[in-house]
Amino acid sequence: MNRRNFFGKAAVGTIGLAAIPAILSATVGSTEKKQKGILSSMKTGEVILFQGDSITDAGRDKVNQQANSSGSFGSGYAFHSAANLLNTMASVQPVIYNRGISGNKVFQLADRWQKDCFELKPRIVSILVGVNDFWHTLDGKYDGTVEKYENDYRQLLTLTKKILPDVKLVICEPFAVLGCSAVNEKWYPAFDAYRLSAKRLALESEAIFIPFQAIFDEAQKYAPGKYWTGDGVHPSMAGASLMAEAWLNAVR
Amino acid sequence: MNRRNFFGKAAVGTIGLAAIPAILSATVGSTEKKQKGILSSMKTGEVILFQGDSITDAGRDKVNQQANSSGSFGSGYAFHSAANLLNTMASVQPVIYNRGISGNKVFQLADRWQKDCFELKPRIVSILVGVNDFWHTLDGKYDGTVEKYENDYRQLLTLTKKILPDVKLVICEPFAVLGCSAVNEKWYPAFDAYRLSAKRLALESEAIFIPFQAIFDEAQKYAPGKYWTGDGVHPSMAGASLMAEAWLNAVR
Repeated sequence: MNRRNFFGKAAVGTIGLAAIPAILSATVGSTEKKQKGILSSMKTGEVILFQGDSITDAGRDKVNQQANSSGSFGSGYAFHSAANLLNTMASVQPVIYNRGISGNKVFQLADRWQKDCFELKPRIVSILVGVNDFWHTLDGKYDGTVEKYENDYRQLLTLTKKILPDVKLVICEPFAVLGCSAVNEKWYPAFDAYRLSAKRLALESEAIFIPFQAIFDEAQKYAPGKYWTGDGVHPSMAGASLMAEAWLNAVR
Repeated sequence: MNRRNFFGKAAVGTIGLAAIPAILSATVGSTEKKQKGILSSMKTGEVILFQGDSITDAGRDKVNQQANSSGSFGSGYAFHSAANLLNTMASVQPVIYNRGISGNKVFQLADRWQKDCFELKPRIVSILVGVNDFWHTLDGKYDGTVEKYENDYRQLLTLTKKILPDVKLVICEPFAVLGCSAVNEKWYPAFDAYRLSAKRLALESEAIFIPFQAIFDEAQKYAPGKYWTGDGVHPSMAGASLMAEAWLNAVR
């Protein structure tokens, strides 16, 4: 080894190891100190609930429905978001559930809301629902309308605030990415009305609103739609991480 | 609704919706612009490989071993790290594999290194191995020593740098959390020598070193060891997110 290589290696090594305190301080507890809004007011053991359809479900185990457990979270934005919250809110040890179920429309959330929301006594309820309320009308197997979506959703939110007066709601915008395998021109402008309903309900119910459509639109400046979601509805690994980042940025 | 409530709601709603541009700019592309070091020099389609034992494996699908696919990533730090990289490096669309296998010791990585490393032609190889090299000696079923661990590991790293001259190595420190179900006093001081070997090899091979032991030690100021890892070896959801955060902070 010549002198140049020796000093090169020593320098890299020294930087590498000297950086440990910086990695430590950038990692452990760094986000914990910056929690704002609802997260900063969470008390020890309070419950956070993710609800919705397949995008929230993301292949989770429905038999094991334990809180804070990988298998019961699937591999979507709810998993990434919840893992991040468990890490960055360790001092209050939140209890986090995913109860999304593939294929669900709003009325199906309502059908199971007693068991899958009220009985869990959540402090924060995050809901992503709407794409099936529209999508399933396209093959003629479901005759719902955007009015039914909005009315059912409003009723669900009103009841939730009545039963859980201290709840903080997070309403996620349903989204679709045109040009991917399942989303074509037939979706528009009809689908846009569902997004606007969700936004209106977020405003009415003082919910935090997660603007997923704008997020996916913007993301296509960096990579094509199919990179973020193969079929235009279900996110890829990249898309799920993008959604979690947006969710955390909005809630935090 | 009285006037106070009306304005209260309007204000919250307005803030919620006005915040959309801020959420957008904080989310999409914000980290992409801040990539440093090895990540900033990655070219389109270059490969990142996660290697190791069960902590890396984390229940991944071994039949479907596709890159950038949730099922083939399991639910550990490699999944969280890779999803974040796919999100924040979208403009170069990295190709990321997880090839960790539960129970592996260094010599078992070496046995499958041609297929599970060289043939994938990675630009970055991240390795977490060592806990089994020690742990499996405790029940008398494995007669390895720390010298064998360090020598086998050094040989593997030297060969890797020879076959892949442009590779950037990331060496993750093996760690253990005392007082959890599988880690007791019998582990010390013997296990510490494995950690020091990994650190020494990181220095020798100009690798980025991820100081997981210090990360888990520090994290216990916020929640008990069992919150981060049930058995002291395999991370919980919180622990996996913590590890990914540390990995990303060190590499970025």
